[in-house]
Amino acid sequence: MSYHILNLRSVVAYVKSRTEAASLLDVTGVLAAQEISDGNLNAVFRVAEVSGPRSVLVKQGLPYLRVAGEVWPLSQERADFEARSLARQHAAAPGLVPRPLWHDHEMAVNVMEDLREHTVIRAPMIAGIRLENLGETIGRFLAATFYESSDFALGSTARRQLSAQFQNVELCDLTEMLVLTEPFYPPPNRNAYLPELQKDLNDLQADAPLRTEVARLKHRFMTCGQALLHGDLHTGSIMASAPDAQGLSNIRVIDSEFAFFGPMGFDIGLFLANLVLAAISQAGHAPDPAECQARHTFLRRQMRSCWTTFEAEFRQRLGSAQSPSWREGAFQDALLTSVLQDAAGYAGCELIRRTVGFAHVLDYDSLQPDAARLSAGQQNLKLGRQLIMQASALRTYDEFEHAVWSELGYAALQPLQQGET
Amino acid sequence: MSYHILNLRSVVAYVKSRTEAASLLDVTGVLAAQEISDGNLNAVFRVAEVSGPRSVLVKQGLPYLRVAGEVWPLSQERADFEARSLARQHAAAPGLVPRPLWHDHEMAVNVMEDLREHTVIRAPMIAGIRLENLGETIGRFLAATFYESSDFALGSTARRQLSAQFQNVELCDLTEMLVLTEPFYPPPNRNAYLPELQKDLNDLQADAPLRTEVARLKHRFMTCGQALLHGDLHTGSIMASAPDAQGLSNIRVIDSEFAFFGPMGFDIGLFLANLVLAAISQAGHAPDPAECQARHTFLRRQMRSCWTTFEAEFRQRLGSAQSPSWREGAFQDALLTSVLQDAAGYAGCELIRRTVGFAHVLDYDSLQPDAARLSAGQQNLKLGRQLIMQASALRTYDEFEHAVWSELGYAALQPLQQGET
Repeated sequence: MSYHILNLRSVVAYVKSRTEAASLLDVTGVLAAQEISDGNLNAVFRVAEVSGPRSVLVKQGLPYLRVAGEVWPLSQERADFEARSLARQHAAAPGLVPRPLWHDHEMAVNVMEDLREHTVIRAPMIAGIRLENLGETIGRFLAATFYESSDFALGSTARRQLSAQFQNVELCDLTEMLVLTEPFYPPPNRNAYLPELQKDLNDLQADAPLRTEVARLKHRFMTCGQALLHGDLHTGSIMASAPDAQGLSNIRVIDSEFAFFGPMGFDIGLFLANLVLAAISQAGHAPDPAECQARHTFLRRQMRSCWTTFEAEFRQRLGSAQSPSWREGAFQDALLTSVLQDAAGYAGCELIRRTVGFAHVLDYDSLQPDAARLSAGQQNLKLGRQLIMQASALRTYDEFEHAVWSELGYAALQPLQQGET
Repeated sequence: MSYHILNLRSVVAYVKSRTEAASLLDVTGVLAAQEISDGNLNAVFRVAEVSGPRSVLVKQGLPYLRVAGEVWPLSQERADFEARSLARQHAAAPGLVPRPLWHDHEMAVNVMEDLREHTVIRAPMIAGIRLENLGETIGRFLAATFYESSDFALGSTARRQLSAQFQNVELCDLTEMLVLTEPFYPPPNRNAYLPELQKDLNDLQADAPLRTEVARLKHRFMTCGQALLHGDLHTGSIMASAPDAQGLSNIRVIDSEFAFFGPMGFDIGLFLANLVLAAISQAGHAPDPAECQARHTFLRRQMRSCWTTFEAEFRQRLGSAQSPSWREGAFQDALLTSVLQDAAGYAGCELIRRTVGFAHVLDYDSLQPDAARLSAGQQNLKLGRQLIMQASALRTYDEFEHAVWSELGYAALQPLQQGET
């Protein structure tokens, strides 16, 4: 079927036309479609049985950036990258991504498990919902998907062959421009920000040592192919079912069309930064100080849990690597320190670009009144800058944690309670 | 034409059968072939007019490693990598590589300019021939080929597309095993060495901090795709015409079938290490102390000239990069420091593997008597280890130079004479 943009009517016909659908849905009965597009890039439909419980999710790449429209063309090959990366994530971390059902290259469509009981977590987190297994699950996802795509697991031959399938030039270029370049330089750029932040932004763009570190991180992003990354791992790329009484839920990572071989710290840094953005915005979203502090403690716990889970599981896997080179304890220590440093640096870039760059986050943009947004924006920029400048000197997660939370006013950081780490 | 191994007779028929040959040779006359295979991997023929001055060089990839024979199979795709890399080198650094004439994928053949006036430089250098423009030429070659294939010149889109064409898995695997793994670990391996070096080798393989640094360098080799490297830049991969009265000659880099995207310091380190190997062996090759010292001074000058030329020309090119990120002076400083550190580390690995690994160098293997070889071998291992351990702390070329030459007994290094740098 040659490419055409699906709508509420044609997506039903499309699904019915595919042989793969027969075992997934009652294709002889009535199917109903619903558009649930949410991200910046694609059109997403739920196609469900009207008289039955089953449904699938149909995601189509449009020939332009959905949020910007036809003025910002984008090729549909991102659907191929999502298909390839989702298949590998599903194999490496089963149960942590939607199950892939079929990929249609011509139509730039990926059909996958419809996570009807799940919600994208950004908005619920703004509202204070606590998913107590969030950090641990993401840490596990990262350890598994990174390791299984790395030279450590695959050896260089298979890894280099795999890399060749992930030359995701268009979306990497977006990240390089929107995350790692434009926020740090004066126009021409696509930056957008509160006018009251102009002075802070001028200061930031006049900071030559900062620009040097960002250039270093950008060059590393471009050249350091350690593992197959998700590439866009923020809280808008994670879904969860409603938490049970213990705060535990089923958590899935979605939207991997930015997947490419890069430095592992990039994904980790983006995830951590989005929890920091959530934390900074809570001063505005949770006016009750005790509630705000409780949410902060929750976020601090998730961040720590993400890192410690990632580190422990990645080390465990390295212990079974075939080459003796990777089983050297001191090599593992040095590698994980450099991943932490990268994570801190990219986290800093994410804090800044989500405040003054092209694409913000709801945590920050939804703050009312403007004074709360301005204050959060200034804090994002200040902490982002500090993390970038301190990144190369970081040695332990404790140092990273201290850098973050002292900026949020927790001068003497209390140890997390038993059971909180 | 389906693949068959060429011999002295069939190579003439092969050349005559190709339309590309008509403008290069008198294909209606008598052509004579001569086998001039020299490297470890391929068969190489000169096909020349008997009654005229013209000739071409025919290089064919065999389905095995030439020096090891059919027991060590190797795919012929290396001829494709050589064709692609030679074309790019020729465009980026015209006159510094043989002119490519044609590539025949089926036959795994590359036909190129026959450098009849040129000789591979390793043996002449052992004999004390001084090519005063060697270092400068190689520095220029490296700056041009690296820059033109990097994100700095191409931007990320074109660079990622180009990388996809250089997934040179088989030959990268050889380097990872033979250069960056086996020399540092006990059997199973393919190491070969003087029995008298057993104790030194045991010490080296018992050195856990050394293994950690080597694992780091190996991981960097595997994941850090900064530029299109030559991949095997030793003095057996460089040819030169006879030097004129000033020691100047026409210099060409050959044999780029190992080409891949890697850390720039790898090529630089291999070249520098091969001059160090040449220097250490001169104690045996030039028994006259004054002559030995003169050759050392020559080699020291070429090494410095290679680095300073590379650095100056690479910086100059970076100054015209499109992205403002790469024009930051401090970014350039940090980048070049890290390239120097990589160069030192890989130079150390090369010194060690050429002494105890699978493939040695003539400089060292030709030393007589055994006592001279043993002494040079011990020095190679000692300096190799030091360079690997000091690499990450190096800040300037002076520090690198001091590390090398103090080990060769030049405790107080005299500045090079005017005109020597």
